[in-house]
Amino acid sequence: MRLFRPTEAHAHCDLFCGVYDPAQAMIEAKSVLQCANKYHASDDEVFRARAISIKEERAELVKHHLSVLWTDFFKPHHIEAFPQLHDLHWRAIKQAGDAKKSMDPAVSEKLIELIGEVSDIFWQTEESKATGVYPPS
Amino acid sequence: MRLFRPTEAHAHCDLFCGVYDPAQAMIEAKSVLQCANKYHASDDEVFRARAISIKEERAELVKHHLSVLWTDFFKPHHIEAFPQLHDLHWRAIKQAGDAKKSMDPAVSEKLIELIGEVSDIFWQTEESKATGVYPPS
Amino acid sequence: MRLFRPTEAHAHCDLFCGVYDPAQAMIEAKSVLQCANKYHASDDEVFRARAISIKEERAELVKHHLSVLWTDFFKPHHIEAFPQLHDLHWRAIKQAGDAKKSMDPAVSEKLIELIGEVSDIFWQTEESKATGVYPPS
Amino acid sequence: MRLFRPTEAHAHCDLFCGVYDPAQAMIEAKSVLQCANKYHASDDEVFRARAISIKEERAELVKHHLSVLWTDFFKPHHIEAFPQLHDLHWRAIKQAGDAKKSMDPAVSEKLIELIGEVSDIFWQTEESKATGVYPPS
Amino acid sequence: MRLFRPTEAHAHCDLFCGVYDPAQAMIEAKSVLQCANKYHASDDEVFRARAISIKEERAELVKHHLSVLWTDFFKPHHIEAFPQLHDLHWRAIKQAGDAKKSMDPAVSEKLIELIGEVSDIFWQTEESKATGVYPPS
Amino acid sequence: MRLFRPTEAHAHCDLFCGVYDPAQAMIEAKSVLQCANKYHASDDEVFRARAISIKEERAELVKHHLSVLWTDFFKPHHIEAFPQLHDLHWRAIKQAGDAKKSMDPAVSEKLIELIGEVSDIFWQTEESKATGVYPPS
Repeated sequence: MRLFRPTEAHAHCDLFCGVYDPAQAMIEAKSVLQCANKYHASDDEVFRARAISIKEERAELVKHHLSVLWTDFFKPHHIEAFPQLHDLHWRAIKQAGDAKKSMDPAVSEKLIELIGEVSDIFWQTEESKATGVYPPS
Repeated sequence: MRLFRPTEAHAHCDLFCGVYDPAQAMIEAKSVLQCANKYHASDDEVFRARAISIKEERAELVKHHLSVLWTDFFKPHHIEAFPQLHDLHWRAIKQAGDAKKSMDPAVSEKLIELIGEVSDIFWQTEESKATGVYPPS
Repeated sequence: MRLFRPTEAHAHCDLFCGVYDPAQAMIEAKSVLQCANKYHASDDEVFRARAISIKEERAELVKHHLSVLWTDFFKPHHIEAFPQLHDLHWRAIKQAGDAKKSMDPAVSEKLIELIGEVSDIFWQTEESKATGVYPPS
Repeated sequence: MRLFRPTEAHAHCDLFCGVYDPAQAMIEAKSVLQCANKYHASDDEVFRARAISIKEERAELVKHHLSVLWTDFFKPHHIEAFPQLHDLHWRAIKQAGDAKKSMDPAVSEKLIELIGEVSDIFWQTEESKATGVYPPS
Repeated sequence: MRLFRPTEAHAHCDLFCGVYDPAQAMIEAKSVLQCANKYHASDDEVFRARAISIKEERAELVKHHLSVLWTDFFKPHHIEAFPQLHDLHWRAIKQAGDAKKSMDPAVSEKLIELIGEVSDIFWQTEESKATGVYPPS
Repeated sequence: MRLFRPTEAHAHCDLFCGVYDPAQAMIEAKSVLQCANKYHASDDEVFRARAISIKEERAELVKHHLSVLWTDFFKPHHIEAFPQLHDLHWRAIKQAGDAKKSMDPAVSEKLIELIGEVSDIFWQTEESKATGVYPPS
């Protein structure tokens, strides 16, 4: 849902002026992990039911944020420079799906790791300097 | 948001029991095209504003349905058999983004064409027989 | 959310140019049925909780798609030609509500049957030729 | 999305214990009317664009609330007692669609009138005493 | 999502022309309470799971409606006249969060009570005469 | 929608185990600002209409994220320690409403500034150490 200039005359903005940051996917993924952890620490029926459904919702947001990075932020020249980008996003989004299904915190931790890999590539791009908000310190 | 068995013991369903159909992406894409066509046929301010925003919404649904096919339906062995799958989905989802930005019907027609390519591959898979609802006649 | 021309001058499009297809309701209803079936085949707490909530969500989408057909696609002359349309949609949408409440696959199968009846009428209309995407083969 | 007991044993609640009130549809319809009125009172491009899209959103909520009354609150014995219910809801929901398309306040006023008719019938039912929240004073 | 005139020239409407009514929060809160009550009256796994998730959803709507009143309807002069407004809304929205977590009907009843306090203040304002729809009789 | 332990026995987690970060509000606010900036740089009708509606959507997300911080993260002892918290959140959420209405980038910049103030307080709390993800470097 990010915004680009739609015409040739605005080619610069079409490429470089959006606001993107892997922080959005990462924050939701941390929330997914917390849902899994807390589920196991509780024996309350209501709490556990809520942990399952909130994890589902947060993992769906992870999918959304990753998909926005993949198809809105990354351009053909990034795919050339980082040929693993397609498969990495595919595995990361699939992992978010697995994190919906599983209460095993290791599944969520793997998701966080994959988002970390996406993030590393994001911050290596020239374009991230203009569009990213929370660069690694 | 499709449902798979989440445990090892249910491996069969994890792979083959969902309900998927490229028809969902295609119907929304046809709606995107109609919005573009009708926008040009009208000179009413209100109608045109609605055509822009309804097209936006429908194109977002196209993105969602394509993303579900890519990361939920397709499995590693499909990627091996159809190595163009990653890039095809990337271009198709990017095209849905372009169709948000542009009122040129040709942009929406290209989107429909790309969904057609996804659909062709979908229906060539063994798994589509069990999960698809509207096979090509 | 379908789009029509809003002014008198565009009466043709106001009536005949949208994109509608009962396939949208049918695909979600099949997903509802699968949720009910899979719920019974599993004894995993997490899986069952997810089956309940995903079924809820899919049944809500069935309601939405049926409502769009009823009030956006069908026009007064269709109600005259098919006097059962009002009651059929009422029963079908109520059935989607019942399918939310019940894990009995028979309830979902009845929903699929009622959508089949809506679909039959849809494809008998003259207007479906222009607006439908997946005609019966 | 209202809640009923799903089993035979809870038949009383299945019929009489939900929370429904035509106030929900009416409040959104008044908002639709205000959007139409304010659109005409402004010549600001941004304001007018927002009036169109907020009206669209509010009218969609009207449709949703009317649909809930029609298929969740009203039961077969209400249809018998008030045979106009099906057609009244159909015309009211269609009117909400017309109110999306038109900036003419008269179209929104007609919508408010039709919701008034639904409301009159709602408050004549025995069940409204238990489920309604804002009875006519 | 309420609509105000965005320019200085339309200051009157910016303040007084929206449509607001605490009825929206109250109706959802009554639904939250019913979910809690019905949860305890049932021993059906599916029913109880649905009661938890529908309560969650309804409580989220309560939060939304209260937030709209707090930041869209109430103006600085209301905060001066009713200095408890900030803390009251904070406690009411927090209570909606507690009502998500707890199946204790007393928690939902407390929520209804707090919305009642908001409502009392709302109807004491001069502006409510123009924007409210369901005044106390 | 963050998750807390719902019972007395889990008081520690009720207070300290969520995942919160003002980064979520900030990233959306930067996007709001970009929409305002780009709107002025374009004279394309379609682009401008999209800038208005995407800004609306992003500003709504800012409101949501601020509201979550205010009523889910902050506890009574924070309100005591930072007595400006209520009014600050009220002004910040109101500013997000103003940023919906206005294309003036200064309005969005003021919003970013207010979120900065919320962020400063957030990171001064003891609890942020456990729940925050992107601390100031």
